[in-house]
Amino acid sequence: MCFWGKMLSILALLLLALQGNVSGVALLEATERNCSLSPPFLPSTAVNSSLRLQELRERMLLSGISAYIIPGTDAHLSEYIAPRDARLAFMTGFTGSTGTAVVTPGKAALWTDSRYWVQAERQMDCNWELQKDVSIGSIAEWLISEVPHGGNIGFDPFLFSLKTQEAYGMSLESSNRSLKSMPGNLVDQVWKERPPISPDSLIRLPDRVIQRPWQMKVEQIRNHMKENPYEPTALLLSALDETAWLFNMRGNDIPYNPFFYSYTLLTMDEIWLFLHRERVTEELRTYLNASCSGPFCVQLKSYDTILDHLKEYVSSRPDVKVWIGTEYTNYALYEIIKTEDKVMSTSYSPVLTTKAVKDDTEQRILRDAHVRDAVAVMQLLMWLEKVVPTGKETELSASAYVNRCRSKQKDNRGPSFETISASGPNAALAHYSPTVESNRHLTVEEMYLVDSGGQYLDGTTDITRTVHWGTPTAMQKEAYTRVLIGNIEISRTIFPSGTRGVNLEMLGRRALWEVGLNYGHGTGHGVGNYFGVHEWPVGFQGNNIPFREGMFTSIEPGYYKDNDFGIRIEDVVVVVPIHTKYGHNYLTFDTVSLVPYDRKLIDISLLSPVQLQWLNKYYETIRRLMGPELDRQGLHEEKSWMLRHTEPFVESGSSSSLQSSSPTLVTLVVAVLYNVAL
Amino acid sequence: MCFWGKMLSILALLLLALQGNVSGVALLEATERNCSLSPPFLPSTAVNSSLRLQELRERMLLSGISAYIIPGTDAHLSEYIAPRDARLAFMTGFTGSTGTAVVTPGKAALWTDSRYWVQAERQMDCNWELQKDVSIGSIAEWLISEVPHGGNIGFDPFLFSLKTQEAYGMSLESSNRSLKSMPGNLVDQVWKERPPISPDSLIRLPDRVIQRPWQMKVEQIRNHMKENPYEPTALLLSALDETAWLFNMRGNDIPYNPFFYSYTLLTMDEIWLFLHRERVTEELRTYLNASCSGPFCVQLKSYDTILDHLKEYVSSRPDVKVWIGTEYTNYALYEIIKTEDKVMSTSYSPVLTTKAVKDDTEQRILRDAHVRDAVAVMQLLMWLEKVVPTGKETELSASAYVNRCRSKQKDNRGPSFETISASGPNAALAHYSPTVESNRHLTVEEMYLVDSGGQYLDGTTDITRTVHWGTPTAMQKEAYTRVLIGNIEISRTIFPSGTRGVNLEMLGRRALWEVGLNYGHGTGHGVGNYFGVHEWPVGFQGNNIPFREGMFTSIEPGYYKDNDFGIRIEDVVVVVPIHTKYGHNYLTFDTVSLVPYDRKLIDISLLSPVQLQWLNKYYETIRRLMGPELDRQGLHEEKSWMLRHTEPFVESGSSSSLQSSSPTLVTLVVAVLYNVAL
Repeated sequence: MCFWGKMLSILALLLLALQGNVSGVALLEATERNCSLSPPFLPSTAVNSSLRLQELRERMLLSGISAYIIPGTDAHLSEYIAPRDARLAFMTGFTGSTGTAVVTPGKAALWTDSRYWVQAERQMDCNWELQKDVSIGSIAEWLISEVPHGGNIGFDPFLFSLKTQEAYGMSLESSNRSLKSMPGNLVDQVWKERPPISPDSLIRLPDRVIQRPWQMKVEQIRNHMKENPYEPTALLLSALDETAWLFNMRGNDIPYNPFFYSYTLLTMDEIWLFLHRERVTEELRTYLNASCSGPFCVQLKSYDTILDHLKEYVSSRPDVKVWIGTEYTNYALYEIIKTEDKVMSTSYSPVLTTKAVKDDTEQRILRDAHVRDAVAVMQLLMWLEKVVPTGKETELSASAYVNRCRSKQKDNRGPSFETISASGPNAALAHYSPTVESNRHLTVEEMYLVDSGGQYLDGTTDITRTVHWGTPTAMQKEAYTRVLIGNIEISRTIFPSGTRGVNLEMLGRRALWEVGLNYGHGTGHGVGNYFGVHEWPVGFQGNNIPFREGMFTSIEPGYYKDNDFGIRIEDVVVVVPIHTKYGHNYLTFDTVSLVPYDRKLIDISLLSPVQLQWLNKYYETIRRLMGPELDRQGLHEEKSWMLRHTEPFVESGSSSSLQSSSPTLVTLVVAVLYNVAL
Repeated sequence: MCFWGKMLSILALLLLALQGNVSGVALLEATERNCSLSPPFLPSTAVNSSLRLQELRERMLLSGISAYIIPGTDAHLSEYIAPRDARLAFMTGFTGSTGTAVVTPGKAALWTDSRYWVQAERQMDCNWELQKDVSIGSIAEWLISEVPHGGNIGFDPFLFSLKTQEAYGMSLESSNRSLKSMPGNLVDQVWKERPPISPDSLIRLPDRVIQRPWQMKVEQIRNHMKENPYEPTALLLSALDETAWLFNMRGNDIPYNPFFYSYTLLTMDEIWLFLHRERVTEELRTYLNASCSGPFCVQLKSYDTILDHLKEYVSSRPDVKVWIGTEYTNYALYEIIKTEDKVMSTSYSPVLTTKAVKDDTEQRILRDAHVRDAVAVMQLLMWLEKVVPTGKETELSASAYVNRCRSKQKDNRGPSFETISASGPNAALAHYSPTVESNRHLTVEEMYLVDSGGQYLDGTTDITRTVHWGTPTAMQKEAYTRVLIGNIEISRTIFPSGTRGVNLEMLGRRALWEVGLNYGHGTGHGVGNYFGVHEWPVGFQGNNIPFREGMFTSIEPGYYKDNDFGIRIEDVVVVVPIHTKYGHNYLTFDTVSLVPYDRKLIDISLLSPVQLQWLNKYYETIRRLMGPELDRQGLHEEKSWMLRHTEPFVESGSSSSLQSSSPTLVTLVVAVLYNVAL
């Protein structure tokens, strides 16, 4: 938005304010609901939830519950879900990736985090109130205020992790309200057109991207079980990437995520794989050794029989003990085994912690996937530089372009998530994706943020670049540079093996904090080899596991100015060992995303010498790795573009850096000059 | 230790190594036990535990338990304890401030952290094994390997917090071993000469150091109870500083800590204070309004009746709900109330979270106590500079000297903990205090670390300085400077209100990590107004609460080189608001400890310009605040010393800073010079 546009908006708002309680924003933009008007204003994007709420409440009445909790996840506690599991979206209209809804006879509320507040206001009708503190404690407080003493609060035990159930249980413990586990989801009962399960055949990964055959992985995991002092007799795998990883298999049940509905129960002698058996080809049956019942035979069971089978296993012998991960095991499974010392739990299964550290092959091919992915992103950025001034391109056309570029790269399997292609104020919504309604034209007057990634047979990518094709404001440059400093400071830091990401992540915020800026989302998440784009439990969150050599994570600080612009810079890095002067077992990060930043937005004078050095070294790496790849693909224009954008910063850095140095340093340089002059 | 001394040691070790499995260290120093020798080598500091272990095991047999856990705390989960609660030390000989012992019929083991490993080896006999992973998970694993299936593990419920009990419970849940709560401590039964309770009268704080009378505090806390959605009807205060704070009272039950054995049960209408009533003077009874039973009358009950009274309260009405903090409420109390929704818990009581933020008076007088305290520390450092070269002073005499200096300051109430006065290798034991056996002479050839603090009626202090009176090695200077950088980096950082210390503390380690150095202890703890020197829950640990304006904490990074030297730099800071360019509600730290660092140990070339600026500004503050105080006390020599040691670093900083700058910066300065020359 240009200067005059801004002035007009301010004038319009002032006029509206004088007219009383009319919401200026709603009238100006008309994209968000306004429930305080009479009649309420609803944008065209809002979903009418009255009928479904009425039907749900009828079922709640029959079940004798005073509230029903609707989480946004599936039975595997997936972060991204299949359309058939989008119960939260069906009920509320809100399609963001995280949220929880609660319905009582008289009220309905949605909890989601700051990334999604605007989106929720655009998608929900006035049946729903929006709650902004997403902690379970806050949901519990609301429940206590809305549910009468002695009331029951229903939930589907398949959609609660053991940990989530415990958190609700603790929060409600002293409240005289009871949690009621209710298998048979109430939303499904009112959802007439619930999408079916994908009928497609499952696939196995080709040998060229695999170092460890599934039998070797099974043996590794059994060794973890043997070494465990609690002597588990079985391991239950509930998260979809656990089974996919163990058997080197993939599916297509969830958009952008190559997973398939499954559970695994692994003992020392047997392997039971629960899935939709009709999707297993003969070749796959052979691959899995599915027609026997020894320690390395995979016995295929119907997906729906997991509860019965687990019950049978648990009661088969007195001394069984099932190892589960509390973060990804649903409460329905836990209810089966929880009695009589038959469960042992850790936050994450040994599959998730083993999978977090990539083997040599996985590291090599994941780096390689990032080289090819960088070609596609450079093609997008180069194309945009050329076409944006024509005024014809939009967020949607840019998104389509980068998807097309990626699709041409070897082993591409589509995008790894819905591309965030966001111009101007749209980029202030941290997880915005363009729709036909919201689509903006790209112009030289707005900043543009593109967060995209690809699935490749050998790896999953995720990268964000923010650019400006015209003249950024001083504040935009400052904010961008401080976000970049955050990225550099985390990337270059040296830390002992076993340090947790949550203890490092403030380095991503510190330069922003210095001037009173911040961002409201996490600082990074694991990524892996053809898996979900958020591959937990690696990353910078409080519940993430300590960093070890061979883990991959994104680093993605940002800054968002409401109704104006958004900045995020995201790179994927791998944890590598580093030699230090005195110590052993120290690590640092090596950046594997290989796309230069927008030079126009970098205020070199804010960078310290060591940050500038890091940046130039990174640009050298881009040249070293991307030059030959662009040559190989015959992309000469792209190569020139890359070389132009990775020019070292020395020259301009020299003078600017001096100007911005602290008084002390300036004094000293002046002193030196003075001496020379003498 | 000088160069030749080191060479001789190495030669001696080589000779010993050639002789076989004799431990060189034991023969050379003979201060640590060696249980692999036959007969075992025991230093004179080791305690013979055979008889007490035998007696304890007899009682364990009678109680039908296969293991007994002995924590190092008291019924109030105090960090520092009275001699009568030193059960761990009585059983093991080990007197360190943290540890847990477990005794089985055949084995005995002590768990303590790295600060205390050497001390434990000096104090324990060979009945005890030393375990180094102090997590409850590790203790549980040991228990599982030592206790047979179905065995009982006994513990005294008064010495376990609710949280500790839960952690053990969870770790042992799937193991078929049971935790058995056993009131009536078994160690007490074999401890014939257990010290009695202090008979001294309790005191109230004078009005001049109090902003809020106890009635106001009671009202504040009741407001917290009213606002809580779980509607607690009572608050149980179990930690000793909770009751001391609420009533503005102090005692002398625990060395260095002005606490008295007590519990408080607070409802909306009544206040019950459990303590040793014979220690309450008539004046204090009047002060507490102890002869009535209204909402602002304190009903005094005998300390030992807390369980009975709590039981009575809980069963008095059906709708009572007792608010407890899980970190400081012992399991014996919890067992009374845990049934039937009668408990509500948070990690910390509202007293602890309210107390963490100092009011204006508390802030002012705590700053003031630090001014007087700095006088004493400067006197010590000045004196040592003069007398160490004579070779007559020792760790013990230095410790006595600083205690004497403090005792002369207004309102001093003795040291706030046993002074750590440690020279050379002794300082490598992070929490060493000198004894007659270990006492070293202070020399110009060793580094010296002094960590000390005072109790004052208006505040508690805690400061560490490390000095060298001769010529430090390059490595000592580098390590010291990097520790100092850690201190500066935390102190100067700007962060949003509500940031947790654990997310900032890596700034204290980062400069050390860069060269592969680190330290094995926490980075800081709260301090307050005449309380324990570690005033939780403020600080940099994972379970500490977020920082808010008005909290005080220490910042204390360090580095310890085994058998060589130890460095720690500790200052107390207060959290203050800071104006930022764009944001609101940002905070930073203001250092209230006011003693200069050892110039000889600072390698200015390692400091960035902004770090140097911070240091010079800090020295200006010392001059501004300490100059008038030293004048007021007529301490002219001390003032000259202070001025000499707080000279700004500009001059030497200029040239060194250049030498160490990154290549880029050097290049740029050279480039500038070159241009000038042209």
